[in-house]
Amino acid sequence: MPKLNEHYQDLKESYLFSEIAHRVSAYSEAHPDANIIRLGIGDVTLPLGSLAIGGLHEGVNAMASAETFKGYGPEQGYEFLRKAISEYYARNGAEVEPADIFISDGAKSDTGNISELFSNDNVILIPDPVYPVYVDSNLMGGKHVTYISGNAENDFLPMPDPSVHADIIYLCSPNNPTGAVYNKAQLKEWVDYALANDAVILFDSAYEAFVSDPELPRSIYTIEGAKKCAIEFCSLSKTAGFTGTRCGYTVVPRELVFTASNGKEMSLHAMWNRRQCTKFNGTSYIIQKGASAVFSEEGMKQCQENIHYYQENARIIAETLKKKNIRFFGGVHSPYIWFECPDGMESWEFFDYLLNNAQVVGTPGAGFGENGKNYFRLTSFNNHENTIEAMKRFEKLF
Amino acid sequence: MPKLNEHYQDLKESYLFSEIAHRVSAYSEAHPDANIIRLGIGDVTLPLGSLAIGGLHEGVNAMASAETFKGYGPEQGYEFLRKAISEYYARNGAEVEPADIFISDGAKSDTGNISELFSNDNVILIPDPVYPVYVDSNLMGGKHVTYISGNAENDFLPMPDPSVHADIIYLCSPNNPTGAVYNKAQLKEWVDYALANDAVILFDSAYEAFVSDPELPRSIYTIEGAKKCAIEFCSLSKTAGFTGTRCGYTVVPRELVFTASNGKEMSLHAMWNRRQCTKFNGTSYIIQKGASAVFSEEGMKQCQENIHYYQENARIIAETLKKKNIRFFGGVHSPYIWFECPDGMESWEFFDYLLNNAQVVGTPGAGFGENGKNYFRLTSFNNHENTIEAMKRFEKLF
Ligand SMILES: Cc1ncc(COP(=O)(O)O)c(C=O)c1O
Ligand SMILES: Cc1ncc(COP(=O)(O)O)c(C=O)c1O
Repeated sequence: MPKLNEHYQDLKESYLFSEIAHRVSAYSEAHPDANIIRLGIGDVTLPLGSLAIGGLHEGVNAMASAETFKGYGPEQGYEFLRKAISEYYARNGAEVEPADIFISDGAKSDTGNISELFSNDNVILIPDPVYPVYVDSNLMGGKHVTYISGNAENDFLPMPDPSVHADIIYLCSPNNPTGAVYNKAQLKEWVDYALANDAVILFDSAYEAFVSDPELPRSIYTIEGAKKCAIEFCSLSKTAGFTGTRCGYTVVPRELVFTASNGKEMSLHAMWNRRQCTKFNGTSYIIQKGASAVFSEEGMKQCQENIHYYQENARIIAETLKKKNIRFFGGVHSPYIWFECPDGMESWEFFDYLLNNAQVVGTPGAGFGENGKNYFRLTSFNNHENTIEAMKRFEKLF
Repeated sequence: MPKLNEHYQDLKESYLFSEIAHRVSAYSEAHPDANIIRLGIGDVTLPLGSLAIGGLHEGVNAMASAETFKGYGPEQGYEFLRKAISEYYARNGAEVEPADIFISDGAKSDTGNISELFSNDNVILIPDPVYPVYVDSNLMGGKHVTYISGNAENDFLPMPDPSVHADIIYLCSPNNPTGAVYNKAQLKEWVDYALANDAVILFDSAYEAFVSDPELPRSIYTIEGAKKCAIEFCSLSKTAGFTGTRCGYTVVPRELVFTASNGKEMSLHAMWNRRQCTKFNGTSYIIQKGASAVFSEEGMKQCQENIHYYQENARIIAETLKKKNIRFFGGVHSPYIWFECPDGMESWEFFDYLLNNAQVVGTPGAGFGENGKNYFRLTSFNNHENTIEAMKRFEKLF
């Protein structure tokens, strides 16, 4: 009989979104006339820009004739896209060479698969609350996880504790679900800590395009020394509306070389390359054509129009919370607004309260970790009119 | 310092295709006028059919307006595609429910990732020679592999040894690189062996669409009992020319339930679902639209036209080998032709011989395992004219 990977038994049932769907549908069955507004969505809603659409059609057309047809491409992604991303980095103040960039079908795959490169006896720090993939992918592999606490005292931006050693550190900035963003000084503290500990930072910048303050770091590689200690994950999902189109990229600098127990040097870049060449056959040429259109200056301008639309929604939500004197996090350089549930409610309790009394759906913070259990996430991904209407109801309620 | 996954040190440097490229470019530099013909290609060359192209454009168009825009889809794939594949199975004589089908970006990802579901103390059988992903993905995870020998005596179709126990068995039919295909009786022997051993068969049918004899199994689910012991991987890469477009699918029957060491039941279907939901964000909607057009009856007719073109090339290669009394394998229900190198040559030696004396490029069997070291693979993926010309040269040479 096959012996199965029993670490899967260590996973908590992931019922967040199914439970939300379940409660919403029960409510709307009982109240068929209710106009329910969903501010729980962690997914873009605006269509792709015309340049991305043009690039995708071009990619499809190439497949239609023998002269331009594309079969297997490089597992690392096409040079034209790696170069376009390198140039995008340069415009944002970070120097990243095309050769260090790996194109993929999205940041969930890469943030999930990266743990394969490490053995099971590392001290792995993961923020709480955070995007659940980091924890689950590590548990699946039989790894142990040490939580670092995000809380109101540290503005949901956990900082290193120099007295504690770590080997691997996950950071997510702008953060999902809290919307909190590290500034350069804070990120430098993490980089310095990682260099001092010979640790690796796994930096998820999936929401970097929402950062509008040029003083805030959109890439960890704007911090000195980061290439010696950090892998960065990014995605076109929120940058360009590619959640259903699928494209991401991961930077693994060739500087990341460590010594194995037998004294041999092992390069994380070479290992990731080998991992991708063995278990991944490259991202669709069609999608890469669309992605490269996104990274042109004009393409990025179109993306920014959509992002501004979401940012305006975030501003409306933030204004309402301010008016009601509810302290919140995020909402400026992020599509997410995170706040403590009023009256000491737990997050699922508040979920029901908000649904029942305002017909507004959000996301219970408990879905993102222990520290989220009294918090709530609203998102700016619904449309303008619904966001305004939801906030009107919210104002009345409190 | 992070402890890296040192099992990566157990991997052999994978230099097959880079070494081929290196030797070919050295030759063509020395002989700039040589007309080199590549019959080493493991990749389709004909453009996609018009229905697939239409489906892809439709998918792109959906992304262009808010009403039809698609964000995150189900990690398992859209129901419309899972249904279309289920119907395709039915037309080929196998009953597979949509709920057991998982859509992915290709069979390399799935055949590579599946080993995560198993612990490291299994007896794992892998044919030699075979597609290298099975071995490498297991070694990367620290697993041990037992080779089962494909050789001229068993027509490169290794059969079970009832006196030896196994837990996990990889099979690939039609095989890459040998082109050999199990018949129903042989496959039944494997299914019966797996059931007797409570083992799991990981069946790779990436080349099933090349099977033209209705008596030969295109799916392991045409064999009784297979749903209790087999996972099947398939791909649109060779079926529909999607090598650069990227779409595959994997069937994990809900019947596959095993008992863990603590007595709890664990379902491979549930585990694969959890794996995909944690580390994969679904296949691009655009690509799934193209794929669903492929699985219409008309779409599949277009695919078969391309496959017939390749089959005719295979026939030409096979005829030449027959004429020269060289025993070969494959070439009928497969794009691959596999034969012993003449005069006891090793496969790299023969590679050089063929390049130098006929300007024809093939693939040395050594790249697919120990048992391939005196064998050679030619493929039918070049065009008709080049295939004929290559075979003329071949005839003259021998
Ligand atoms: C922090 C974070 N990282 C990564 C992802 C995954 O992005 P992708 O769509 O590229 O898989 C998400 C998606 O919600 C996310 O919130
Ligand atoms: C036997 C076999 N399985 C799987 C694959 C991978 O196919 P895909 O393109 O779907 O990743 C190949 C590709 O060459 C193959 O030969």
